[in-house]
Amino acid sequence: MTKQKVAILGAGSWGTALAMVLADNNQDVVIWGNREDIVEEINQEHRNSHYLKETILPEGIRATLSLSDALAAAEFVVLAVPTSAMREVAKQVSETLSEPRIIVHVSKGIEPDTNMRMSEVIEAEIAPEKRSGIVVLSGPSHAEEVALRHPTTLCASCSDHHLAKEVQDVFINNNLRIYTNEDVIGAEIGGALKNIIALGAGISDGLGYGDNAKAALMTRGMAEITRLGVAVGSDPQTFYGLTGIGDLIVTCTSVHSRNWNAGNMLGKGQQLDEVLSNMGMVVEGVRTAKAVHGWAQELGIDMPISEAIYEVLFSGKDPADAVDHLMGRKKKEEKETF
Amino acid sequence: MTKQKVAILGAGSWGTALAMVLADNNQDVVIWGNREDIVEEINQEHRNSHYLKETILPEGIRATLSLSDALAAAEFVVLAVPTSAMREVAKQVSETLSEPRIIVHVSKGIEPDTNMRMSEVIEAEIAPEKRSGIVVLSGPSHAEEVALRHPTTLCASCSDHHLAKEVQDVFINNNLRIYTNEDVIGAEIGGALKNIIALGAGISDGLGYGDNAKAALMTRGMAEITRLGVAVGSDPQTFYGLTGIGDLIVTCTSVHSRNWNAGNMLGKGQQLDEVLSNMGMVVEGVRTAKAVHGWAQELGIDMPISEAIYEVLFSGKDPADAVDHLMGRKKKEEKETF
Repeated sequence: MTKQKVAILGAGSWGTALAMVLADNNQDVVIWGNREDIVEEINQEHRNSHYLKETILPEGIRATLSLSDALAAAEFVVLAVPTSAMREVAKQVSETLSEPRIIVHVSKGIEPDTNMRMSEVIEAEIAPEKRSGIVVLSGPSHAEEVALRHPTTLCASCSDHHLAKEVQDVFINNNLRIYTNEDVIGAEIGGALKNIIALGAGISDGLGYGDNAKAALMTRGMAEITRLGVAVGSDPQTFYGLTGIGDLIVTCTSVHSRNWNAGNMLGKGQQLDEVLSNMGMVVEGVRTAKAVHGWAQELGIDMPISEAIYEVLFSGKDPADAVDHLMGRKKKEEKETF
Repeated sequence: MTKQKVAILGAGSWGTALAMVLADNNQDVVIWGNREDIVEEINQEHRNSHYLKETILPEGIRATLSLSDALAAAEFVVLAVPTSAMREVAKQVSETLSEPRIIVHVSKGIEPDTNMRMSEVIEAEIAPEKRSGIVVLSGPSHAEEVALRHPTTLCASCSDHHLAKEVQDVFINNNLRIYTNEDVIGAEIGGALKNIIALGAGISDGLGYGDNAKAALMTRGMAEITRLGVAVGSDPQTFYGLTGIGDLIVTCTSVHSRNWNAGNMLGKGQQLDEVLSNMGMVVEGVRTAKAVHGWAQELGIDMPISEAIYEVLFSGKDPADAVDHLMGRKKKEEKETF
């Protein structure tokens, strides 16, 4: 394969781990960051110690503070910024690019108020003549493990199958297996909403309930995510794949997960503001729970688990009472018609 | 609800935990066991210390060594014996019953050589005039947690919806939520084949791979179980429910799982015979891996993960080589057509 130039926008753990994959694949990769200390450390010491502690980065990875430097001649532009920064960064990309590029994004969330998925935000901000397509790269992936070159799978999703395959070709190697899928909406809904369920899994563990309760929450949680996803145009099958249940499993069963940790503290009796100030980091599931609460009501979708988690987060509901209420609902059939 | 009489056949951990549920629901429950010490301990000390260590059983639970005593006037007969004993016990039930009863089974496995599901074994052994229907009760459920009355969900599956609802009514309470489903084949295939993937999850953890690898294995593992399930008449949706992915999650992420433990030892370099003698217990996944190896070939179904696990178990393949081979297969789309 000929060498391709890829710009990774965002010097966090995930952006850096993906840059490592590309360098391993002998692609020409540059990371754009906005913190001078991080950019310098990547260039001079081949490390990003703030995000990937001990990891030594391949020497081929270069970092820059200049967006135009990063974007110059890049065939692929990978947006790896927090969802709260997505709109602003996409706008800058649009202003800086002179030619259409393949845009890839790897961020999971729903924009509050607008209920827009990240690809919709990008579509709104990057002018059509500056993009040849938007591909979502998502799946069960702690950045730390990708940096250790442990086996990992992702899915490249795009309605244009050809573009998804181009992204697959650039990233795939023997440590990182990439599948393709045409369902962008499903990939984005699954990736974003699973963080709410991860909060719930943490709450359940914090209450001292066991593996049965957590598996039930995850399974029935994915059932209600699918319900909303189908209502907004997803293929139900996507939710049972890597970007759905796969990502949910990683997020709910790892003590490294921020959302699980926040939930765990809530289950142990802490209040939300206390938890968030203890974490000192963005907990995407809290933001998403708020967005989905209103969205599900608008759409008339029954999402009892997400709703219970919303009430624990924002209405002071006792977590144990919320579980009791979920267990005591009226008897149900499992199968749904989509 | 009027009190119903239920006979639980099998005094293991799961049979005993289900008897506790029924006693909590004020049903008339009797356990049939074949070990005198266990039957005596249940009756005299209200414990089953061999299987449920510290648990105190409700006083309403009675145990007996006599099958005809247990079956006398029981409206529901719950088969809670190991899959290897299912055919023989079902035969005895048929000989002992004088009237048709609702047969429930809670055992997960495929009979080697015949490739029969447990309900097919029961159908073959219990004469039609001795049964009004067969219901599968399955889902993510460590018996120990049900005995602790921790929140748990199960699914009662039967092609006759009315019978599934009867079983739901008898078992449901605020700690144990029961759903109904009409897809018996899917419930049984999911419950049995997930043990193979649990062996694989243990192998992956034993090799020191991370959460990404395990989530990938579980997700793609369920995809290939679904492939086989659909080929033999299941509804694909069942595999994404409690008896499929739900049960898989519990079995792959708990250190209490026998199948995960056996896999973990294999991943750390032990040989199968060594592992099995160390366990000193039946590891259902090993038996099922053998059955499915031949079955998938017969049906012409591609099951690369189950096949890789089979080769590690029975052909001396190195586990790390097996993972390498899985990661290096040709590029794939995720979505399948069922």
